[in-house]
Amino acid sequence: MSYEHFDEFRAARDRAQTRLQSVEHLGLKRFLRMDAAAYEDLTAKGGLDTKTKELLGLVASTVLRCDDCINYHVEQCLEAGWTVAELEDAFNVAMIVGGSITIPHIRRAMLMVDELSGDQ
Amino acid sequence: MSYEHFDEFRAARDRAQTRLQSVEHLGLKRFLRMDAAAYEDLTAKGGLDTKTKELLGLVASTVLRCDDCINYHVEQCLEAGWTVAELEDAFNVAMIVGGSITIPHIRRAMLMVDELSGDQ
Amino acid sequence: MSYEHFDEFRAARDRAQTRLQSVEHLGLKRFLRMDAAAYEDLTAKGGLDTKTKELLGLVASTVLRCDDCINYHVEQCLEAGWTVAELEDAFNVAMIVGGSITIPHIRRAMLMVDELSGDQ
Amino acid sequence: MSYEHFDEFRAARDRAQTRLQSVEHLGLKRFLRMDAAAYEDLTAKGGLDTKTKELLGLVASTVLRCDDCINYHVEQCLEAGWTVAELEDAFNVAMIVGGSITIPHIRRAMLMVDELSGDQ
Amino acid sequence: MSYEHFDEFRAARDRAQTRLQSVEHLGLKRFLRMDAAAYEDLTAKGGLDTKTKELLGLVASTVLRCDDCINYHVEQCLEAGWTVAELEDAFNVAMIVGGSITIPHIRRAMLMVDELSGDQ
Amino acid sequence: MSYEHFDEFRAARDRAQTRLQSVEHLGLKRFLRMDAAAYEDLTAKGGLDTKTKELLGLVASTVLRCDDCINYHVEQCLEAGWTVAELEDAFNVAMIVGGSITIPHIRRAMLMVDELSGDQ
Repeated sequence: MSYEHFDEFRAARDRAQTRLQSVEHLGLKRFLRMDAAAYEDLTAKGGLDTKTKELLGLVASTVLRCDDCINYHVEQCLEAGWTVAELEDAFNVAMIVGGSITIPHIRRAMLMVDELSGDQ
Repeated sequence: MSYEHFDEFRAARDRAQTRLQSVEHLGLKRFLRMDAAAYEDLTAKGGLDTKTKELLGLVASTVLRCDDCINYHVEQCLEAGWTVAELEDAFNVAMIVGGSITIPHIRRAMLMVDELSGDQ
Repeated sequence: MSYEHFDEFRAARDRAQTRLQSVEHLGLKRFLRMDAAAYEDLTAKGGLDTKTKELLGLVASTVLRCDDCINYHVEQCLEAGWTVAELEDAFNVAMIVGGSITIPHIRRAMLMVDELSGDQ
Repeated sequence: MSYEHFDEFRAARDRAQTRLQSVEHLGLKRFLRMDAAAYEDLTAKGGLDTKTKELLGLVASTVLRCDDCINYHVEQCLEAGWTVAELEDAFNVAMIVGGSITIPHIRRAMLMVDELSGDQ
Repeated sequence: MSYEHFDEFRAARDRAQTRLQSVEHLGLKRFLRMDAAAYEDLTAKGGLDTKTKELLGLVASTVLRCDDCINYHVEQCLEAGWTVAELEDAFNVAMIVGGSITIPHIRRAMLMVDELSGDQ
Repeated sequence: MSYEHFDEFRAARDRAQTRLQSVEHLGLKRFLRMDAAAYEDLTAKGGLDTKTKELLGLVASTVLRCDDCINYHVEQCLEAGWTVAELEDAFNVAMIVGGSITIPHIRRAMLMVDELSGDQ
């Protein structure tokens, strides 16, 4: 699903995410925790930092063409310190790997980048 | 495409489905019939019952990330007698196989499950 | 993302496409040019004509299930001279190759075909 | 990757799986455990039994077109008690949902079913 | 699965296809017939000719990245009269739509084109 | 396609890549150049460095499940200076985003990492 503005995305996501987090199912609960943990800083154990992993999450979401996931990681990437020019370069890698079928997602993502970076 | 409420999905689907079913093309007509037939009870011939196949349809739709298909099979699964807890367990399999990229679809699906099961 | 009417699609696409085309990134700029060039007539060099390639673009977009891409190529295909019956036959190939998961996209596409061909 | 005989698959899988299980990475270790747990009997908590979930895993693997995953779940499904006729019916659902692009995987899977069920 | 030479592909495909065609399951039998029918000449009913539809099948198979399907349609396309230069142009559309992830499939496909067209 | 050893992959890839690079088609030639250019250092223009982009390429290839592309980027990532522990952490992100369907590719990739890093 896609949204015209980031706030619409956030409101719809929050409502559904709250519902999902209310499940009793242990497997689903664990997956959500592991999903969050995957982006934590692991440099102390020889792994990657959060900033790098958020960019990996953004590119993975883009080639798999999931607007909700892209929106989520765009916000995380900006908070982690990536610049707009760096995100554009990451989207270029995604477009090359994933082809023109990613373009509708990338052009919507750029509007979200603008909104969130205040660069409108 | 995704919808806030199941009735919106049903109305949009019905309108487009009516159009699709009006085609004269023999191949398209046959595919639609075969699609319906795939979920019919085949236990008399050693195959599966409808209830099991609707759950297969739901999980296949979830890992392929098609909201319309998920909505359709959620309704069929509830009508076939699957409980909310069983659907959550099926979504857990889908989330494990398909990854976090399925989460936006599964959390929207849970809202539809709530609506259709009266468990809001 | 999907739209009830073609004009909504065109407006949303134009807004985001304008943003995308404003990027300074050379790679992104080149990809957009190469994307356009891929559908140009190449019969003079032994390649395919635009009409054939637009149909390839439509079927590729359909099996990859991208509503925006489908809408775009539906319009290009009609302008290139394909009839509604020919587009239905192309959608039949896409439905056979890509399965029932393509049906929500194809039934929405048929509504767009109707709108654009004046056959409502 | 695909294999002519199930034993080749098992040998190649075991070698690589042993390597994967040797990693120190906590996230990877947890994912492998959660993957196994997803197919455990959950009927005591209102969820699904292993037999049903293995069939879900098989159909999900088939529509996502992963030969290794299909081979793995074919063996699990036969051990869980599904008959060859029931697996054929499940593959029919997968073929309808996923389209002709799944056929090469399904026809290879049928050879594996024959080998493992002794029905050659 | 991929093959170094077309004859290996043909032998492996024939063996598995014979097995698949031996199933009693009515749905699977019908799907195989509909799959074949989708590429038949439909110009008498306003549809497309076989030559055009084989090219659609090739591009759909390429963007979905199925080597077996690509090999099959490469042979059909050459028999239907498409030249090597025209197939290259079709692969260019597929590469643009599907991205660099299609390149391993396209470069293997070109070797098959060479073998089958005698242009080695 | 997958390979037991990296040298087999390299030999098969080189043979097919040489064929692909021999095409006269301008679009295909340009795509191959743009693909290479996407991973070049762009820090002088505010973009990303090669090391970061190779990791993006590896994760994108993993979630899209292309063994050839994974092998290629594994080698590039090791040459760019990523450690085995860092690659494992990147694969963890890919496994979370892409699900268990990526596991067969990741476990084969780990064997390639071992071979290329001399850590066998």
